[in-house]
Amino acid sequence: MNKKAVILLSGGLDSTTCLAIAKEQEYDLYALTVNYGQRHAFELEAAKKVAQTIDVKKHSIVNIDLAQFGGSALTDDIDVPKDRDESDMTDIPVTYVPARNTVFLSMALAWAETLGTTDIFIGVNALDYSGYPDCRPEFIESFERTANLATKAGVGGKQFKIHTPLIHLTKAEIIRKGIELGVDYGMTTSCYDPQENGDPCGRCDACTLRLKGFKEDGLEDPLNYLG
Amino acid sequence: MNKKAVILLSGGLDSTTCLAIAKEQEYDLYALTVNYGQRHAFELEAAKKVAQTIDVKKHSIVNIDLAQFGGSALTDDIDVPKDRDESDMTDIPVTYVPARNTVFLSMALAWAETLGTTDIFIGVNALDYSGYPDCRPEFIESFERTANLATKAGVGGKQFKIHTPLIHLTKAEIIRKGIELGVDYGMTTSCYDPQENGDPCGRCDACTLRLKGFKEDGLEDPLNYLG
Repeated sequence: MNKKAVILLSGGLDSTTCLAIAKEQEYDLYALTVNYGQRHAFELEAAKKVAQTIDVKKHSIVNIDLAQFGGSALTDDIDVPKDRDESDMTDIPVTYVPARNTVFLSMALAWAETLGTTDIFIGVNALDYSGYPDCRPEFIESFERTANLATKAGVGGKQFKIHTPLIHLTKAEIIRKGIELGVDYGMTTSCYDPQENGDPCGRCDACTLRLKGFKEDGLEDPLNYLG
Repeated sequence: MNKKAVILLSGGLDSTTCLAIAKEQEYDLYALTVNYGQRHAFELEAAKKVAQTIDVKKHSIVNIDLAQFGGSALTDDIDVPKDRDESDMTDIPVTYVPARNTVFLSMALAWAETLGTTDIFIGVNALDYSGYPDCRPEFIESFERTANLATKAGVGGKQFKIHTPLIHLTKAEIIRKGIELGVDYGMTTSCYDPQENGDPCGRCDACTLRLKGFKEDGLEDPLNYLG
């Protein structure tokens, strides 16, 4: 019997690659998608497609209304920035969602403990979007410590492990790894401000970084960009 | 202008006292109730009544379906234990909900950051229910550290403070403090397995500890117990 792992899956490029890596490591996959009231709810459809294709044991979609708290361009009526150079992406951007990864990881922790496993995967990345504090290794390590103190499993001597296989990779390296593993990036979505039909804008930070990654690999992004 | 605080409010005796203490400390009160699919959803009605009476600035009720993960007598089809002596309550009980306080505190953190405050109150108690790992000071301290690493506010140099004014008090001391502050415990509910109309069973661990607390204070619990 394989070990179980809970994988946070947004339906984006990073989390999809992370899921494929957990599969390569022969875990039984329990994908967790959090619907937190994001403007780009098209992600949810992508997550469902990815979970089906990569053949997870179970896909849970949990609704949490972070939007009612406001404070982010992803949940609020704040404009998503467009056409920024990567060099402008060093500050914490308005697309930061307060405490998002803490909320996501706690939900993953709750599910993992119920499943009787201690393995959790999250596709955070410390290179791109260096502005997000909850994508840094020091945050992940601290959450791991907290998880071990928080849970019946942890005080019983088990050690939770938050796997972050992408944390030190560039976008181009992530894409290369995914392609190796047979990921079809046509299923994924990264755009913060997509069209009604899900087509990406090509101009928000997420699109800019994604397009640059494919370009560096000498590949073409299978998505259908506007314009 | 007063400082703002987010207070986790279940509608139980502890969190209601905690809210009254935050009010005494002259915070503007932002009460957060998480509806996590608990069997004792009557709590939500109690939380609303308490929030109105103690006059909070805002009361947010967030739905999170922890019940879909299962694994606890509070969310699952597992019997709530009855008629246990306090001496039997040392192990982690079946009413433990995996990672519950981690989930609750992350939601409180998300709201606090959006409100621009760093003060969060939670009515955990390390004496009663010593079996719950996420009620211990070492868990709270670790969560605080994680919160400071997780957030824009934290990396910006602000320090989140998780206030736990009840952590070292006995149930009798908590009740005495609440009575001093004018809390009407008739509004609160503690029972894990109440009747349809909300009346407490008087026999689960929560009822047992609550009744003992009132008795030690020489007071009568205003609730209408079965039997």
